Amino acid sequence: MTQDRERSLEFWFDFASTYSYIAAMRIEELCRTADVALQWTPFLLGPIFGLQGWNDSPFNLNERRGTYMWRDMERLTEKFRLPWIRPTAFPRASTLAARVACSISDEPWCGDFIRTVFTANFGEDRDIGDAAVVVDILRRLGLPGDETVARALEPDQRGRLRANTARAIELGIFGAPNCLVRGELFWGEESLDDAISWTAHP
Amino acid sequence: MTQDRERSLEFWFDFASTYSYIAAMRIEELCRTADVALQWTPFLLGPIFGLQGWNDSPFNLNERRGTYMWRDMERLTEKFRLPWIRPTAFPRASTLAARVACSISDEPWCGDFIRTVFTANFGEDRDIGDAAVVVDILRRLGLPGDETVARALEPDQRGRLRANTARAIELGIFGAPNCLVRGELFWGEESLDDAISWTAHP
Repeated sequence: MTQDRERSLEFWFDFASTYSYIAAMRIEELCRTADVALQWTPFLLGPIFGLQGWNDSPFNLNERRGTYMWRDMERLTEKFRLPWIRPTAFPRASTLAARVACSISDEPWCGDFIRTVFTANFGEDRDIGDAAVVVDILRRLGLPGDETVARALEPDQRGRLRANTARAIELGIFGAPNCLVRGELFWGEESLDDAISWTAHP
Repeated sequence: MTQDRERSLEFWFDFASTYSYIAAMRIEELCRTADVALQWTPFLLGPIFGLQGWNDSPFNLNERRGTYMWRDMERLTEKFRLPWIRPTAFPRASTLAARVACSISDEPWCGDFIRTVFTANFGEDRDIGDAAVVVDILRRLGLPGDETVARALEPDQRGRLRANTARAIELGIFGAPNCLVRGELFWGEESLDDAISWTAHP
C-alpha cells in the first residue's frame, strides 16, 4: 500500500471558533473508529475574515446570526454532552494556543492539549489568550508549560501557524471548522461524517 | 391526546435557495417516517438579506462562500441522488412560485408542487420566475395551471407570503432552509434530523 492510499483527514480549526469546539471534541474519536489518520491543523480565522471584509466574528457583526449560534451551542453541547459556559469574551485571542498546537502537532498528546484549550474557552470561560492559562493547561497535562510555550514562540516554530493560515487562504477556506480530505473541503461541525466518508470515496 | 401534543414541524424555505432544495426534497419523507406533521412554509429571503445589509445572495456577494456552496451542491445532490444542473441564473425570482405554494399549502399535493418547482430550478435550469413555467409545472401535476396561478395572485392570497416573511423576521430567521419545532429554530439542510428529534424533546 502506498502512502497516498492511506485514509487521512486534516482538521482545520481556530481555538476562538465555537463550532470548531464542537467538532474538535469529536473528531479524534470519529477518525479512530473509522481508521482514518488525523492531522490537527490550527489556523487563524482573523485574516480569512479580513479577506471577506469583516473586522470581527460574523457572529458579532450579524446579530441575527449570532443569536442563533449561541442557542445552537446550547443544543449541540447538550446533544454531545460537552461542557458549556457562554464565554464572557468572544472571540478570544487564539494565536498563542494555536502556535503551541502547531509546535506539538506531531506529539501523541496533541489532541489532549487541543481539547483542553477548547474546553477552557467554552466550558470554563477561561482566557486562552493569556499565556498563564496556556502554561497551566500544559501543566495539567503533565507537561513543562513554560518550556513548551517558549519553544512555540521560537522563530522556526512561529512560521508554522502563518503557513497554515496562508494555505487556508489558498484552499478557499472562509470559516471554521473544516475537514480537508483528498483536496475536498468540508466546512462545519455537521460535515464530519461526510468528510470521513470521503476518505473512502472512489 | 390534545392538539398541542401532536408532533409537528414547520419547514421554512425559499425556492431560490440551493440548500432549501436539498432539504425540501427530503423533508416530507423524513416527517412521514417519524410520524411528524409537516407544514410547508414559503417565505422570501430578500427582505431577510436586506436586514443584514445584503442586496444579493451571500453566495454571490462572498466569492469564497459561493465557490464552496456550488461544490457542496454537487456533493449533496450526489449523496441524496437528486437531479442537479447548476442554474444559469442565481438567485431566481421566487415570489410567484412562493405565492402559489402559500395558496395551496393545505392541499395534499403541496409537496409535489414544491419539489417540482425546486427540481425545475436546480435540476432542469428552468426559470421558475416565469409564470409560464409555473403554469406548466402545475399542468404536469394534472392541475389547472392558469386558474391556480390566478387564484394565488388574488388580494386575500397575496398577503400570506408577506405574513410568512414578516413572521420569519420576528423568528430571527437569517437564511434558509429552517425547521421550526415548538419555537426552536433549526437552520440548514444538515439540521433536519435534529429538528425531527426535537419534536419529541422533553
